[in-house]
Amino acid sequence: MTEFIAPGTRFAPLPSPFAFRRGGSLKQGRMAYETWGALNTKGENAVLILTGLSPNAHAAGSPDNPDKGWWEAMLGPGKAIDTERWFVVCVNTLGSCKGSSGPASIDPDSGQPYRLDFPDLSVEDCAKAAKAVLNHLGIESLACLIGNSMGGMVALSFLQQFPLFTRSHINVSGSAQALPFSIAIRSLQREAIRLDPQWNNGRYGDGDYPRNGMRIARKLGVVTYRSAVEWEGRFGRVRLNEDPGDNDRFGMEFAVESYLEAHAERFVDQFDPNCYLYLSRAMDWFDFCRSCAHSDDDLTEALSGIHVGSALVLGASTDILFPLHQQQQIADGLARGGARTTFVPLDSHQGHDAFLVDIDRFAPPIRRFLDDLKDTA
Amino acid sequence: MTEFIAPGTRFAPLPSPFAFRRGGSLKQGRMAYETWGALNTKGENAVLILTGLSPNAHAAGSPDNPDKGWWEAMLGPGKAIDTERWFVVCVNTLGSCKGSSGPASIDPDSGQPYRLDFPDLSVEDCAKAAKAVLNHLGIESLACLIGNSMGGMVALSFLQQFPLFTRSHINVSGSAQALPFSIAIRSLQREAIRLDPQWNNGRYGDGDYPRNGMRIARKLGVVTYRSAVEWEGRFGRVRLNEDPGDNDRFGMEFAVESYLEAHAERFVDQFDPNCYLYLSRAMDWFDFCRSCAHSDDDLTEALSGIHVGSALVLGASTDILFPLHQQQQIADGLARGGARTTFVPLDSHQGHDAFLVDIDRFAPPIRRFLDDLKDTA
Repeated sequence: MTEFIAPGTRFAPLPSPFAFRRGGSLKQGRMAYETWGALNTKGENAVLILTGLSPNAHAAGSPDNPDKGWWEAMLGPGKAIDTERWFVVCVNTLGSCKGSSGPASIDPDSGQPYRLDFPDLSVEDCAKAAKAVLNHLGIESLACLIGNSMGGMVALSFLQQFPLFTRSHINVSGSAQALPFSIAIRSLQREAIRLDPQWNNGRYGDGDYPRNGMRIARKLGVVTYRSAVEWEGRFGRVRLNEDPGDNDRFGMEFAVESYLEAHAERFVDQFDPNCYLYLSRAMDWFDFCRSCAHSDDDLTEALSGIHVGSALVLGASTDILFPLHQQQQIADGLARGGARTTFVPLDSHQGHDAFLVDIDRFAPPIRRFLDDLKDTA
Repeated sequence: MTEFIAPGTRFAPLPSPFAFRRGGSLKQGRMAYETWGALNTKGENAVLILTGLSPNAHAAGSPDNPDKGWWEAMLGPGKAIDTERWFVVCVNTLGSCKGSSGPASIDPDSGQPYRLDFPDLSVEDCAKAAKAVLNHLGIESLACLIGNSMGGMVALSFLQQFPLFTRSHINVSGSAQALPFSIAIRSLQREAIRLDPQWNNGRYGDGDYPRNGMRIARKLGVVTYRSAVEWEGRFGRVRLNEDPGDNDRFGMEFAVESYLEAHAERFVDQFDPNCYLYLSRAMDWFDFCRSCAHSDDDLTEALSGIHVGSALVLGASTDILFPLHQQQQIADGLARGGARTTFVPLDSHQGHDAFLVDIDRFAPPIRRFLDDLKDTA
């Protein structure tokens, strides 16, 4: 039961109490964030990045933490998100274990971690908590709001909850509502964690982390984050060893199995299982139609209630977790709401994670969009 | 540790000893099968059906067992596979727990189940064992060999090992080699079983069946057997209950979760976990290039070594486990080998399992193919 906080992480307090959409509230909560660049005198160049499920706020290296960040190739001086022009803020999602308040944080009332006493977490709460960071920084408007994956969900809720605050929006491999295939995958990941005896209904300690459940959850995640076609070219039927030996009957034999193993090893013990459960469930719950209490189930119509000047919506053709038609839906809705909208379906082989690795495809449209934004600012 | 044998199952002995491709052999082994219709006087109307990973030999109802079979809609008097015209044999795969010898069977030497002492199982062994059933029945040639899913792999090996025995072939949602996405899924399923403490390195008893591991394995199977687009229409975001209550935090909430649960409940305690591991691994190992000791990795070229008069290759556009380009590969190879080949990619929403459920799409081409066969016989 540990939080994993990178050097250089900064913190903003949440309003106390901070009320949750589904009930419950948090006292003395906090949000972790990092920034790059500087806010200009008019305060008009702020860009907020909302992340996927697991990343921390360290999107790129900084003087306080020169380690490479999770979007290092996208963000920095002269890069697509140019930190010489923009004041970039990245927040760690509410409910995470990377510095923002979550189930692994200490409840000030009990002095113990919240664990499953943390309030039910919604995507809408994550958006409200991200806004608290901007308030703390004195940011009164956003030039651009960027959300990736789960962050794309959080971004839509942010735009809905805080109208007229944001001039433009980039939604990357996002979704306006969770669909049953993704719900099934996440439900299985949660079940694997919950079935691990070490999970112990959330009451594991440092020495009895539910490694097995988290291994399965992470590997299943990686399977759905990448794509079959990428792996066919990358791994094919390459073997580690023709004969794994009797000591490890059914053990790893193919390169793809070793790849999954390496991913699991890098994740296990580095992410809090209860936080994982909360964030995972929040994604299942997200449905923009309900988010804005729209009377019917017309997602495009509901999304048209969002008003931004311009929008860029990106997705990868091989994404099975947030499939391309969900990005088309977002683009259609934002366009109907009046945004000058560009929908860019990218023929990337790298699946849902393409925005993290296929920078050659994802960076140019983001660069062009932000450049145009500057010109019209 | 139980075998699950349907009423009316018949048995054919395996040659004793029966040698396995990767080493080891079986004494006093047996194969489970069922038949429908009658062999004609010339012995020219035999059709063999090879199944996917889990089905038994009960493809359709019969006088000995009127229960509906797993391909009831496809097989019977007047149906696409017309048992008034064809003498149809369906075998339970070697290594299974539905009557054919497998890890759950009793080793005559020890009087105990083989468990992990069962020899390593290959798809090629499954084909050789299926042939033993035909020998037992006095069948000297096949009018048609039909293989579905894993059975499609077994069928290719059968055609390679027993040339000039089979006049025509129907390959349904099959594959000539396992690809990394499928290997990854199956590796995860096996890991979930192996991580279940009750698996106990294969030494579970009747009272300590590794239910949790098998639950995860089955649910993950079902996720990959169906399709996201089917589920989007079928389940959408329909909920079971708005509030699962505090008693089952993170419990089932969406209809799709309940669907997976029902599938798991029908499978757990009905399939032997060690058998599952063996069959799953056999599929990963299958590579037709190696199957026929082809010198290079040109699958089409390797498949062209198969000679049948005519072939029908079917697949579903939404199959993520055995994707359509794998059926295209099979069709290309069989055509290059000289078969009059028809490749029918079906625009079915039901994924890998479509051949079991989307009978409206799969039955007509099978019926036409078999009708044509009769006319040219």
